[in-house]
Amino acid sequence: MINIGVIGFGYWGPNLVRNFSNVSNAKVVAIAESRQERKSIILKSYPNITVYNEAIDLIKDPKIDAVVIATPVFTHFELAKNALSSGKHVLLEKPMTSKSSEAHELISLSKRLNLTLMVDHTFLYTGAVNTMKNLISDGEIGKLQYFDSTRINLGLFQSDVNVLWDLAPHDISILKHLISEKPVSVNATGISHTQNGIENIAYMTINYQSNFIAHFNCSWTSPVKVRSTLIGGDKKMLVYNDLEPSEKIRVYDTGFKCKTDEEKNRILVDYRVGDIYIPKLETKEALLGVANDFVDSINQNTEPIASSALGLEVVKILECAQKSIRLSGKEIKIDN
Amino acid sequence: MINIGVIGFGYWGPNLVRNFSNVSNAKVVAIAESRQERKSIILKSYPNITVYNEAIDLIKDPKIDAVVIATPVFTHFELAKNALSSGKHVLLEKPMTSKSSEAHELISLSKRLNLTLMVDHTFLYTGAVNTMKNLISDGEIGKLQYFDSTRINLGLFQSDVNVLWDLAPHDISILKHLISEKPVSVNATGISHTQNGIENIAYMTINYQSNFIAHFNCSWTSPVKVRSTLIGGDKKMLVYNDLEPSEKIRVYDTGFKCKTDEEKNRILVDYRVGDIYIPKLETKEALLGVANDFVDSINQNTEPIASSALGLEVVKILECAQKSIRLSGKEIKIDN
Amino acid sequence: MINIGVIGFGYWGPNLVRNFSNVSNAKVVAIAESRQERKSIILKSYPNITVYNEAIDLIKDPKIDAVVIATPVFTHFELAKNALSSGKHVLLEKPMTSKSSEAHELISLSKRLNLTLMVDHTFLYTGAVNTMKNLISDGEIGKLQYFDSTRINLGLFQSDVNVLWDLAPHDISILKHLISEKPVSVNATGISHTQNGIENIAYMTINYQSNFIAHFNCSWTSPVKVRSTLIGGDKKMLVYNDLEPSEKIRVYDTGFKCKTDEEKNRILVDYRVGDIYIPKLETKEALLGVANDFVDSINQNTEPIASSALGLEVVKILECAQKSIRLSGKEIKIDN
Amino acid sequence: MINIGVIGFGYWGPNLVRNFSNVSNAKVVAIAESRQERKSIILKSYPNITVYNEAIDLIKDPKIDAVVIATPVFTHFELAKNALSSGKHVLLEKPMTSKSSEAHELISLSKRLNLTLMVDHTFLYTGAVNTMKNLISDGEIGKLQYFDSTRINLGLFQSDVNVLWDLAPHDISILKHLISEKPVSVNATGISHTQNGIENIAYMTINYQSNFIAHFNCSWTSPVKVRSTLIGGDKKMLVYNDLEPSEKIRVYDTGFKCKTDEEKNRILVDYRVGDIYIPKLETKEALLGVANDFVDSINQNTEPIASSALGLEVVKILECAQKSIRLSGKEIKIDN
Repeated sequence: MINIGVIGFGYWGPNLVRNFSNVSNAKVVAIAESRQERKSIILKSYPNITVYNEAIDLIKDPKIDAVVIATPVFTHFELAKNALSSGKHVLLEKPMTSKSSEAHELISLSKRLNLTLMVDHTFLYTGAVNTMKNLISDGEIGKLQYFDSTRINLGLFQSDVNVLWDLAPHDISILKHLISEKPVSVNATGISHTQNGIENIAYMTINYQSNFIAHFNCSWTSPVKVRSTLIGGDKKMLVYNDLEPSEKIRVYDTGFKCKTDEEKNRILVDYRVGDIYIPKLETKEALLGVANDFVDSINQNTEPIASSALGLEVVKILECAQKSIRLSGKEIKIDN
Repeated sequence: MINIGVIGFGYWGPNLVRNFSNVSNAKVVAIAESRQERKSIILKSYPNITVYNEAIDLIKDPKIDAVVIATPVFTHFELAKNALSSGKHVLLEKPMTSKSSEAHELISLSKRLNLTLMVDHTFLYTGAVNTMKNLISDGEIGKLQYFDSTRINLGLFQSDVNVLWDLAPHDISILKHLISEKPVSVNATGISHTQNGIENIAYMTINYQSNFIAHFNCSWTSPVKVRSTLIGGDKKMLVYNDLEPSEKIRVYDTGFKCKTDEEKNRILVDYRVGDIYIPKLETKEALLGVANDFVDSINQNTEPIASSALGLEVVKILECAQKSIRLSGKEIKIDN
Repeated sequence: MINIGVIGFGYWGPNLVRNFSNVSNAKVVAIAESRQERKSIILKSYPNITVYNEAIDLIKDPKIDAVVIATPVFTHFELAKNALSSGKHVLLEKPMTSKSSEAHELISLSKRLNLTLMVDHTFLYTGAVNTMKNLISDGEIGKLQYFDSTRINLGLFQSDVNVLWDLAPHDISILKHLISEKPVSVNATGISHTQNGIENIAYMTINYQSNFIAHFNCSWTSPVKVRSTLIGGDKKMLVYNDLEPSEKIRVYDTGFKCKTDEEKNRILVDYRVGDIYIPKLETKEALLGVANDFVDSINQNTEPIASSALGLEVVKILECAQKSIRLSGKEIKIDN
Repeated sequence: MINIGVIGFGYWGPNLVRNFSNVSNAKVVAIAESRQERKSIILKSYPNITVYNEAIDLIKDPKIDAVVIATPVFTHFELAKNALSSGKHVLLEKPMTSKSSEAHELISLSKRLNLTLMVDHTFLYTGAVNTMKNLISDGEIGKLQYFDSTRINLGLFQSDVNVLWDLAPHDISILKHLISEKPVSVNATGISHTQNGIENIAYMTINYQSNFIAHFNCSWTSPVKVRSTLIGGDKKMLVYNDLEPSEKIRVYDTGFKCKTDEEKNRILVDYRVGDIYIPKLETKEALLGVANDFVDSINQNTEPIASSALGLEVVKILECAQKSIRLSGKEIKIDN
């Protein structure tokens, strides 16, 4: 039995507590939360869970084996470092940290102490992403050519990080999960419509050595909600629309082939448009998959799907994107 | 009566001939076309129109007052220069020319000779763009904040220009028509999936002095066809979906307002989501509007909506985008 | 303070308990439920609520002022009669009863004892129906001409009532709420694809003295879920799509006008297609509106929106429909 | 070479002439049309086709082998009878005739004279209907259980026939093409919102000996255009949406299975929701298929797909529907 302590009972914390309660060999024993109105909700819903006012007291509780950190990103590093140093396994909310150097340090620490360090990239545990992963692994899509994601809606403006740090981690983690090639560099542009200068609209391109390309369109300022990704391979193409209740993935038997027209010395392109296939997806809650993977990784000393290495990659890309925006869209190499 | 000569009877030429035939004070008297199978179609459909094998013969025909050029972009400059020099008014297909220097030269020539020079940016004559223009002019949308366009589908790969030169002129011309602020610079990224290195996917950001931003997502490699633009103002927001048969424009009474939370020293944002309004649009054919504007501009010596100045701006932006792609997304200043 | 007892804690009971808990001057004090696994859920979630094994014990509890009956329809009459006879106000799940004679008897009883009797036609308390009601009352739609409802999906086959009794009460109650004209007769057809002969697909027309018509298409056997109603007036037309998350109501400035072509002695029709308007709807939970209306009606001795008279009308129409199906679609007059 | 004469050059006639012009072993040699403005269009577009003022003169023209009749339905019988009697093969626009007795007589005549008699049920030649036919024939859908069609939009009100005669022939012909079981009876209801009493909204159920059912919802008075049919089998279900540009057919691996719960003596139903498949459809013009089938049937003395027998069945059902509406929805047996 793994005893879990959850730090932060704001927007996401209750979901974490509820899902960890459904993991067979784990138990939420404590929550750290300082806001009075949030504490009273815990007391009402979970009378048997200890409530700490201070995170540090939860971290030091010897009953606790593993700590789940669901607080604002700027607090992640200190809390996780403390928890690891206290011998606790750690699950961090996404994004992992505010700086890649911090993520590096946490990874080193977890390795040295042989503790599980994982990041809650929930989307990697959805039926939709799992289906795409299988389609790609099975070779059905062919060699990947592009990944084009749009994640826009109205609000919620964050006051400490820009729209890429808020919305893109979902899509970057999916990208990293689906394609193994390492990205080379990042370009990004964006704009702020508030006085604090934090971008509420931003666009990012991730460049690769091969002719694969990834692009991200993120906004807190759209009148319509869109959560959609196009993924093209040289055999088939995918559309992933996360707002569809049941038809999230569409597989298009669509493609093109180039041949050289010797005579005219130019490229001729043949197009193919075929059937469309909408696979039935698993419907179990993704966050339960996160919780199970965390506990299993601890118990079996294995690497979870949403590994700290993947979490670090996400932070590195966001860091480059922010730098690129500051430098007017300049290409920023990713330090690999 | 303005006598019109049309050069090129390929994909778009027939539409031009058909629409100019419906202009009251104009007449298509000649077509230049060298391909035998295209010529036989002209002969069958328009037995009374003279067919020239060579464009130059049409240009020199003294009966002809105005020349419409519907040939590949790399031929535009020479043909238009010839036509203007021969005292003919000129309507050029979009994009105006391959280089901004050429567009500059044509504009100078047309001014010196007091001839009408116009570019067929057809979308400026649609009911949808006209409605958006009016909504913005009337102040209903407020101060514009962003323009975010997606124009993707499968094919047709061009063999001489990349996807931005092919697809973005529509959206850039609309942008230029809707917002008077001059753009400052361009960033672009892209990728080619063919051996000729011509980008079939490209992304472009246009930057402004104010906090307005414009972004363009263009692809010949998408399994789904999308032709959609989001336009945000500080009062309302618009979605323009050109694939909708009748509901192309949706006006959202949606917005946000910032205030400073003195105590916590941070921005607070209030969101507003209200009614949606779908205006009925004019349904007359846009190309007829182009034809009428061309003939009226000649007769009244006025500037058409799709002016050569606007055509030049489009070419300048495309030129910067191409340079930016070559320089790994570097910001390229627009020479104003 | 009104003390509420809820009979039945199956699918809908928990929603009733939760919503009555949010009514300021009411309190759920007891629940009657005999299934062990349901009882344990009550005990866990509501430790302060008394649980009765038998409905009759709850009805007899003198603390209780009002009884909410959320059990299968065939039990409604006996339970409600008992409750009213014991001096309790009653809220019945829809449909009110299995027979109109039973509904009549309950209404008489409630009137004699001056008790509130209400039916939980939840849809009457939604923002969508409220908006339609206002649009119609304000004369914006004009004289109503038709109501055409489709409510289809896969499952859940009921084992005691056919698909009309299961799905149509929602739409019939909306119809009755929106139009005051009394219906005259009913035609219905249907089919069963199970051995029990209970129709899983059925179609119903309700006829009126005027040239208003209402039609209902209900199915448990559709691969797609549809919950949509078209409502036409002689000024404007409405589409109500309940599956749209926020754009449930669309108002079309669409219509037609007839004139007589004297010469040819025939009708000429002019069509009008104008703007579309999507009003922002209230988003508060409809069932809370039901709970509040029930409590207010008790306290103020007024008639609730979802009155017993309306509930009776729904049952009468369903009864006629069932008879019509049995008689091969024969028109069945409604006994008014 | 079959010489074709076309009677009527109104809305549909030009499409017939254009498509018969593309049939290899046929030629349109004459058109009968009395309206001056229509005649001038023929002269301009088809200078080589003879134009007759009177249909009878075209019918008597000895050059002509086959007559295509594209005039209002009340004229079909006399024209077709004349043409057959003059030894011409006949293609009639849908619906075949105003009365089933007339259709019977034409069929007898064509058989006696060994002439081809065909009805232009164009939809039978579409890629969508062809794909559905194959899916059903291959057993993929299983035993058919229902056919539920909606064909609604605004206008065009007809002045001689009601909305069923105008819109339902498409769907009835598709139904007859897809299912071989003979229908037994018809119920229909409807309403007129014009002074001439002709129904602009109507609903029809077709009943069968088995537990198959077909339903039709037709309206000239809808603010939205819908052309959609649900077809359910005991293995899979289909949705046919004719307004989708390329995704007209969706095949749902959806179904349900009943078993008897011995203990509780009731039916238990298991639902299955699986993948969805959108087959790529042929895109050739359906009317060309009609033209080719007509000419081939003449040349090879075979029965066309859109046979006169099928055309008669459509008229018989419409006749029953009209009678049922007049008799307040009474079931009308189809005379087989």
